[in-house]
Amino acid sequence: MAEGGLKGFPEWLPEQELVQQHVIATVRRQFELHGFTPLLTRSIEKIDDLLGEGETDKEIYAVQRLHADREDEAKVALHYDLTVPFARYTLERRNQLIFPFRRYQVQPAWRGERPQLGRFREFIQADADVIGNGTLPVRFDAEMVLLLRSTLDALPVPPVKLLVNNRKVLEGFYRGLGIEDITSTLRTVDKLAKIKAEGVTKQLSERGVADEAIAKILALSGIELASAAEIDRVRALGVAHPLLDEGLTELAEVLRAGETATGKVIGAMHLARGFDYYTGTVVEGVLEGHPELGSVCSGGRYDNLASGSGVKLPGMGVSIGITRLLAYCFHLKLLGQARRSPAAVLVVVHDEAERAASNAIAAELRARNVACLVSDSAAAYGKQIKVALQLGIPYAWFPAKDGKGHEVKDLVAETQSGADPATWSPSPERLALAFTSG
Amino acid sequence: MAEGGLKGFPEWLPEQELVQQHVIATVRRQFELHGFTPLLTRSIEKIDDLLGEGETDKEIYAVQRLHADREDEAKVALHYDLTVPFARYTLERRNQLIFPFRRYQVQPAWRGERPQLGRFREFIQADADVIGNGTLPVRFDAEMVLLLRSTLDALPVPPVKLLVNNRKVLEGFYRGLGIEDITSTLRTVDKLAKIKAEGVTKQLSERGVADEAIAKILALSGIELASAAEIDRVRALGVAHPLLDEGLTELAEVLRAGETATGKVIGAMHLARGFDYYTGTVVEGVLEGHPELGSVCSGGRYDNLASGSGVKLPGMGVSIGITRLLAYCFHLKLLGQARRSPAAVLVVVHDEAERAASNAIAAELRARNVACLVSDSAAAYGKQIKVALQLGIPYAWFPAKDGKGHEVKDLVAETQSGADPATWSPSPERLALAFTSG
Repeated sequence: MAEGGLKGFPEWLPEQELVQQHVIATVRRQFELHGFTPLLTRSIEKIDDLLGEGETDKEIYAVQRLHADREDEAKVALHYDLTVPFARYTLERRNQLIFPFRRYQVQPAWRGERPQLGRFREFIQADADVIGNGTLPVRFDAEMVLLLRSTLDALPVPPVKLLVNNRKVLEGFYRGLGIEDITSTLRTVDKLAKIKAEGVTKQLSERGVADEAIAKILALSGIELASAAEIDRVRALGVAHPLLDEGLTELAEVLRAGETATGKVIGAMHLARGFDYYTGTVVEGVLEGHPELGSVCSGGRYDNLASGSGVKLPGMGVSIGITRLLAYCFHLKLLGQARRSPAAVLVVVHDEAERAASNAIAAELRARNVACLVSDSAAAYGKQIKVALQLGIPYAWFPAKDGKGHEVKDLVAETQSGADPATWSPSPERLALAFTSG
Repeated sequence: MAEGGLKGFPEWLPEQELVQQHVIATVRRQFELHGFTPLLTRSIEKIDDLLGEGETDKEIYAVQRLHADREDEAKVALHYDLTVPFARYTLERRNQLIFPFRRYQVQPAWRGERPQLGRFREFIQADADVIGNGTLPVRFDAEMVLLLRSTLDALPVPPVKLLVNNRKVLEGFYRGLGIEDITSTLRTVDKLAKIKAEGVTKQLSERGVADEAIAKILALSGIELASAAEIDRVRALGVAHPLLDEGLTELAEVLRAGETATGKVIGAMHLARGFDYYTGTVVEGVLEGHPELGSVCSGGRYDNLASGSGVKLPGMGVSIGITRLLAYCFHLKLLGQARRSPAAVLVVVHDEAERAASNAIAAELRARNVACLVSDSAAAYGKQIKVALQLGIPYAWFPAKDGKGHEVKDLVAETQSGADPATWSPSPERLALAFTSG
């Protein structure tokens, strides 16, 4: 990655971009297999829609025509996530949409935060959400968690540990302990990995939480549930509250669905997620073996985001940080970058005068969905093949000449054999773009 | 299309976005079949890089952090096309790239122009360019024109009439007539369709061009060449200049290549294209039968764009205006919008208690690459199927029940038959997303 003098705005090399496009295509395919429809929203929003009431500290990028000639043009800014634009879109079009509305978006978002590894000023997110009209039963939460699990399992990256929890469990547990300032408590517990038990104890103590209650909170935070059946481990802590019961029932349904997935879905009772708008299920994924990198995907249930003026559109969404995930994988060399061209075949040119014959072979291969490039020069064969190797193109095609038929050379195996442009196909393994090495 | 109160920033409905994504995927597939590698550049550029020396009138969107805390942060703006960012990227990375460098980009660009049909403030472009290091023979121009022709032919839109010319032909012809102010003459001739022969005659006359020369310019403008052999029709006008000869030789090579394409490539001697940076081949496509809409794709050869400080990187590029093309097609109802969901199958739920069985069928179908949705409710079958029809999902799957095996209903043909989730596949024609009706 280089950033051309603008830090935080990453641009990949061709061999990396091929991997990114493969990752994006895989995500899109999984989302569509699950019936989520693609959507693009505009890149800008009215600033009033981006900032909540009284909010002034969001790191957003304002946008203005260099030659703004009308003072009354709307004040606009680049969106900082894909949830706010989606909520706005859904509210505006609610009479043209069919609910529950399932959509996904893969688009950049922009934030003016200080750049560092994993935190960019322009970054691509892949979001999927389902929004109900009026109600949305918790089985949709389970559906979204399974969607995220399937999608992560399909990616050519290291295994992702997927954690779920339910905000009602945490809030109910805290209320059952007599705590009333739920938001501050959530914020503190959310920092557990960073500030450790000592830090959490200190902050809660300062806010007047009793030692016994703090001990229970820390005990809860330490629990990981491998299945719905293990939920009794939470009940065994002896805290009671109706909201806790409701949360545990919802969490059990999500975990039960998770048991049908190929990958694991783990109940992580420390998980809070920082956003105020989550109201139930929360979910987060981290690269296994690399917890220090933080989350690469997240999501949750929001009952109140896309609501207002007599309309209630509860939703559940998940989001994969494509740029962040790839930046980690490239940085840690967890993703191979074997090819610099989508071409499977370099068609050799015997002689500039015979280029038309090579072009004709390329056209025949392309018509059969085989990507190929005709050699840019009629140089010595060794030179032409050197270019193919530089580009990571796995095959070279030698057009028929002087009574000798067409031949294809496998540049990896270094074998050469006769081939017919009407039937030959590349081996799928030669076309693998990305692999997990870590 | 609705624009949520921000005119010029289009957002499509789900059934339209499915068509747009199909169009984008088709373009990407064609570009990759021809060995062009995907690339994404950042959305913003330094304003100094967007404005040429002394330029101040470009309609660009400046971008600034709402809480800009450092006066020395670079002045940046959203890019207004994909060529300038690509040229900047290529110059910066020239030591890491392999030349000739072929890449494509499908990204939004932003212009602050007054919105109208076909002219947007945010719009998606699909660009492909090849850039050489030092030199780039004219056969690359031919390759790019063929690439554009193949791509247009693969799209589910009305036929596109593809016109090519060469700036050297026009400049050489004008110089052969003794005209020296080439740029003004090009600009005037470029407006021929709008201001007609009378307007062109008037403007050229006012600039002192002789009547006989104007007659020859108008005669040249009227010529359309179906093949390279017809180039003599230009020579027959009796104008001579070395640059004209050079241009005609280049144009002949492009037209000769065009003769091998499935679609037509027409030499259009009126074609100038407005951009100053084109130096040879120029190309433009219009929807057949709809010349009033203007071009939907364009491109050309630029010898000097990505050059400077001892580096010469000549290029040839083509660009398809995705948003513009779709806006026209939707507006004229040339594109059908039959589906609102990527799902091929709605899996019916007999009873809420049997949802797991429906989920298992969906998982089996998805593992075989069949997109499906499990019904959101266990309502009466008629109601479940009504939702499938609303979403444009062509099949409903009835899970085995009470000794009766799995059955699939084709909702278009209204036929129902037994099916095995391990082997059943949808008919490709039921999954067609877009069609040309005009």
